[in-house]
Order: sequence, then C-alpha cells, then structure tokens
Amino acid sequence: MNVLIVHAHPEPQSFNTALRDHSVRILADLGHSVEVSDLYAMGFNPVSGPDDFTDRADPDYLVYAMEQRHGHETGTLAPDIAAEIDKLIRCDLLILHFPLYWFSVPAILKGWIDRVMVSGLTYGGRRFYDRGGLKGKKAMLTLTLGGREHMLDSDEAIHGKLDDMLRPLLRGTLAYTGMTVLPPFVAWHVPYVDDAARAQYLNDYEDRLRNLDSLTPLAFPSLDDFDDSMRRK
Amino acid sequence: MNVLIVHAHPEPQSFNTALRDHSVRILADLGHSVEVSDLYAMGFNPVSGPDDFTDRADPDYLVYAMEQRHGHETGTLAPDIAAEIDKLIRCDLLILHFPLYWFSVPAILKGWIDRVMVSGLTYGGRRFYDRGGLKGKKAMLTLTLGGREHMLDSDEAIHGKLDDMLRPLLRGTLAYTGMTVLPPFVAWHVPYVDDAARAQYLNDYEDRLRNLDSLTPLAFPSLDDFDDSMRRK
Repeated sequence: MNVLIVHAHPEPQSFNTALRDHSVRILADLGHSVEVSDLYAMGFNPVSGPDDFTDRADPDYLVYAMEQRHGHETGTLAPDIAAEIDKLIRCDLLILHFPLYWFSVPAILKGWIDRVMVSGLTYGGRRFYDRGGLKGKKAMLTLTLGGREHMLDSDEAIHGKLDDMLRPLLRGTLAYTGMTVLPPFVAWHVPYVDDAARAQYLNDYEDRLRNLDSLTPLAFPSLDDFDDSMRRK
Repeated sequence: MNVLIVHAHPEPQSFNTALRDHSVRILADLGHSVEVSDLYAMGFNPVSGPDDFTDRADPDYLVYAMEQRHGHETGTLAPDIAAEIDKLIRCDLLILHFPLYWFSVPAILKGWIDRVMVSGLTYGGRRFYDRGGLKGKKAMLTLTLGGREHMLDSDEAIHGKLDDMLRPLLRGTLAYTGMTVLPPFVAWHVPYVDDAARAQYLNDYEDRLRNLDSLTPLAFPSLDDFDDSMRRK
C-alpha cells in the first residue's frame, strides 16, 4: 500500500510527532511505501485564494471551486498544490495526523484540505459519498488531545461523542470524497499522562496499523438512496 | 452594542462580501459600533506556531495553549494576535462570516480561532461552556453555501442537519468559550440562485439583524450538571 500521512504539529519534539515517526517505521516494516507531508516543516500555505491558479477560467471573479476544476483539468494549479495532489492520487491510505484544535484540525491542515482536495478530482457534480472521486482509497484520522475519554464517549458526556464533533471531517470531507473511512485513532489526555501511558499509546497505534484490514469502516449514506435532486427516494 | 465581524472570503466582489457590507450598514443604522476583521484583506496569518509569542514560558518545547496563557498574562503575544484579542474583548456580538468550505470555516478563519481565542482568556481549567471566559457575549455564524436546504435540514437529509455539521463551531468553539450562541444565518445555493433570490437573502439578513433580541439561543450543557472530573452528576 502507498500511505500518505499529512501531519500538522508545530513542535517537532511533541508526542504527536513521535507517534507519527513511530507509525512511519511500522508501516515501512509492514512493506508499505510511506510519504509524509509535514505541513509545518514544509511551511505549507493554508490560505486558498487567487494565487492558487496560474491560469484562470474567469480572471475577473473568483469562484474557488470552479477555478479548482479548471486548474486541475488544464494542469495549471499552483506547484505546491499540484505536488500534494500527486501524493494524494498515489496513496491507497490517507492519514490525517494532528492535535485536536477546537475539536477540529489546526488551520494549516484545514488549508491542505481546502486547497489540495480540489473539485473536479475529489468530487464534483453528483460525484460524492459512494460516488466520490477518491473511491477505493482508505482514510483515517489520527489525533492527540488534552481531554479525557469520558468527556467524549457518549451523548451524555460533557462534549457528546468525539465522532459527532469530527463529523465535518469524517463525513463532510473523507466520506464525501468517496474514501472508506476507518475509525479514528485517538490518544487522550496527552499533555498530562506519564511516559508509561505514552508508551502504551505507541503500542496501541502499532497494533492498529498492523490490523487495518480487520477494522470495520464507518457507515455513511449511499447516493443510491437519493434522487437526482438529492432528496431521499 | 459593539459588533465584531470576522470575515473570510477571497473574492471582494462575492455575494458573501456584499452580505457583509449590507450587514455593516444595517448594524450602524441600528446604532451599533461595528468592527470588521477582513482576514483576506488583512493578509491574516492563520498558522499557529512559535512566532506567536515574543516571550516563552518554555523556550525549548512548545505547548501551544500553555504559551497562549503565558503570552496573554504577560502581554507578550504577537501584535497581530493582540490586536484581534482587543477587538474580541471589546465586542458584545461576534459574527463569524464565511463561505462554507468542507462543512466548516475556510482555513484563514480557522487560524483566527486557533490563534486569537487564546487559552487563559476564552477558556482554561474548568472555565468553559457556561463558565467560559467570554460569557456575556453573543455569537453567530453567518454563512453562504452551494448546497440546497433540503440537503441539510433533517437527520434523513443527504448530509444530515447543518447544525450537526457545524457542531465543532457552534458547540466546540462558540459555546465552549461561554458565549450565547444565536442560530446561524444561512444563504443556500448561492452560486446558482438569481438576483431576486440574492436580494431576498439581503432582506432576510436585515430582518435577522433587526431582531437579534427575539432569537432563541441554542442550548448547550451547563457545568452545574458535571462534577470536577467532568462526569455527569
């Protein structure tokens, strides 16, 4: 398998980054090819805008998704975007690896999604969910956070369920583009736990990566159940 | 009232931007003071990192939220962050005004949240939800999107409910910091509707802004129902 890890953490010495490095070793041991887009190390620009296009379908008025389609079709996307798209197309498994910021990805990773997961390639027209442009690929979120599991493990928990907080990512992004979405891997309470707990997370993640095929993917809608105007049949 | 509009759209001629300009006029007519942080026009940097701090509690290892607390307490946050915090503290109503990108805010606005809504001021320790640091302020999302309302109006809709997609923003960000969260204002299907429909959205938003006091805020948990370890009593 080709694995693309898109990583976003501002501290190279962090546990989050150690977890990433550990996963690169394990995945290589398993015979996979691994690419890492370390967004902080790359100085990745997360701001979508007119400079993302070296040629414009409409030079006077920016409709971002329309220009993404034009740029992808004509090969005129900015080089930093095109390079990431090449990695995305090559991968069989996409891992978004990040610390949870405001129950979501850090802005630098949101910008990778905004700019790289272009319309035309990953979705477009009626191609989304099980007809999405990235159908056939797998995707997984790997995240570290400060909260404890009992704060996000049920509807009655103080923040409800983690997967509900992650809905725009799990459903609105990964599943939307047709990818098979594996359950998130989560390391809880990371700033506060001891070395033994951190070592356990490394072991748990290794087990996870060695057993990806045995995971039950998350369930999402099928367009077969909706008509052309996207109303339920 | 002091109103702060944090706006993120890459096209100055967009309907989204026209809606913002319209709202500035209406709010001023109503006697409110209005400030606008136009993130694209400002060239706002959304990438959280070590450069956000001119003095460090720990110069060797970055724990972002800890440095936010230190920077806020000692007045050593980067000037672009400090300027936005001043606006945030001044405001009685915060409006995040944006086009929906991947069922969330564009990265440049996520970065405003990551960098400006600092730990220590907006939350910290057991101060969140109804004990959050921004208690007493109101907040609202104003968004434009390409989808139609029937695609996001119920659990059975193709994307489920819009408010569920917006959960990390409505609950995980605005309510988390203690603000009173008003229902989002939404303009649907914007790239595809005619001028009459757009004029109707402008009118609808004007009505909304003239009647903010009559809106029923969204409901969120109270810490009164949880013990010190954040388990439900």
